[in-house]
Amino acid sequence: MTTERLSINQITVKNWSFEEAVRGLARHDIRWIGAWLGPVQEYGVARAAALLREHRMQVSSVCRAGFFTGRNPDGGGLDQAANERAVEVTAALGCDVLYLVAGGVGDDRDIEASRRAVVRGVAELVPHAAAAGVRLAVEPLHPMMCAERSVVVTLEQALDVVEEFDPAHVGLAVDTYNVWWDPAIDAALDRARGRIIGYQVCDWLVPQPHPLFGRGIPGEGAIDIPSITKAVDATGYVGPIEVEIFNEAVWASDPDSVLTTITDRFERSTLPGF
Amino acid sequence: MTTERLSINQITVKNWSFEEAVRGLARHDIRWIGAWLGPVQEYGVARAAALLREHRMQVSSVCRAGFFTGRNPDGGGLDQAANERAVEVTAALGCDVLYLVAGGVGDDRDIEASRRAVVRGVAELVPHAAAAGVRLAVEPLHPMMCAERSVVVTLEQALDVVEEFDPAHVGLAVDTYNVWWDPAIDAALDRARGRIIGYQVCDWLVPQPHPLFGRGIPGEGAIDIPSITKAVDATGYVGPIEVEIFNEAVWASDPDSVLTTITDRFERSTLPGF
Repeated sequence: MTTERLSINQITVKNWSFEEAVRGLARHDIRWIGAWLGPVQEYGVARAAALLREHRMQVSSVCRAGFFTGRNPDGGGLDQAANERAVEVTAALGCDVLYLVAGGVGDDRDIEASRRAVVRGVAELVPHAAAAGVRLAVEPLHPMMCAERSVVVTLEQALDVVEEFDPAHVGLAVDTYNVWWDPAIDAALDRARGRIIGYQVCDWLVPQPHPLFGRGIPGEGAIDIPSITKAVDATGYVGPIEVEIFNEAVWASDPDSVLTTITDRFERSTLPGF
Repeated sequence: MTTERLSINQITVKNWSFEEAVRGLARHDIRWIGAWLGPVQEYGVARAAALLREHRMQVSSVCRAGFFTGRNPDGGGLDQAANERAVEVTAALGCDVLYLVAGGVGDDRDIEASRRAVVRGVAELVPHAAAAGVRLAVEPLHPMMCAERSVVVTLEQALDVVEEFDPAHVGLAVDTYNVWWDPAIDAALDRARGRIIGYQVCDWLVPQPHPLFGRGIPGEGAIDIPSITKAVDATGYVGPIEVEIFNEAVWASDPDSVLTTITDRFERSTLPGF
């Protein structure tokens, strides 16, 4: 397995600035990076685009817009203007995949109303995204994030949203960490044929060191990642496989050694991607 | 709303011994208790049964048997003999509902094999439970517990297990904390008609103070508990509504004041149970 499809989300090497991340990934012969709005805007969008060109590096995805329910513990992306700026940054980076996070349950505890707000929010953003040539990626987060971050929590439910829209403009994002537990995963991935536009991987550690920042490098936890990758590819997805790891121990390690571990493991795998 | 259907799981008043819990609940005019094997066995099963009779208190459920996949971070209940003892203790307490916890994913990461092991495990225990007049309650845990505690994580999936067996011997247990996020909750509860034999409630706090021990007293979090109770009752369930709260702050409080809060809130609610 070559590392042709390997992407590293910059959160995985959190202690590096955007510039350090691009240069570092290039040093490891990695051709894709998953970018976050904040660090890119801090560095300067035009400057970031030039740096990417200089290193012939492509952006697999940009995190993130959405939070259509108005609930976002992390700040940002809360209004239409912020979401439109996210679309523009994505396009400026030469990337066509912008991840959406739905937002959590409203104060009224009406989860169905919050879910309807997500569909309305995506619909409002679609014309802007279509004009910019950016596809919106609806990502189900893990059900443990339902209250605070995302009322969209299963693949089937995300597909219900995605199927409301033209495949040219809205697709599905799959992250192993968020979906591996789902007894309906096979049926959902069958149904997702032609609709997956983003794929992220990380592992579920046992025991889990932290509810948010305890994700594992693929191969170190309970998730059968190769099987999920195979099923994702079977839908027709041929894009980058992006390693996104929120983990305080990983962040405390030398980013170069983290990248060596990941690329070694990726190259050694007989199945596609870990 | 009278407190006729109110049950308190003894973990909610964790700092009380079994005897203190029974006497304390009786003082608050609560007629049901959810019991845990450990404290009951420590106190003595026959002695516990006598204490319950003395206070005319009924046991709504016993926690817990199962762990059929062999993975149990909490210890106990791992083999057939231990599960049979759990059935006997349940019957000796005059209770006919024994909660099962499936167990987490095996070391082989084969989640489907682990799920098949659960069905086999329940099947093995049914004859013993049937002979003792105890019903086995299959409980889906929250998906965040899939790796370590339960490969059964949705109502639909728990129903797939339950429907393999005679309703006289195997039923479904619903806990608001475990199922509230599920986009398929309405369809699943429709399907659960006549099969629910246990109902527990607690709330999802925002922010969540602890992944395991951060559950809230009903009314303090993001879950629309009255709507779920209504849907559970619509399946034909008329049994106790058991408040089971794992929360370090609740445990650090005076158990009497916790019970006052719960009973006040239960009595004030216009909908059935909170």
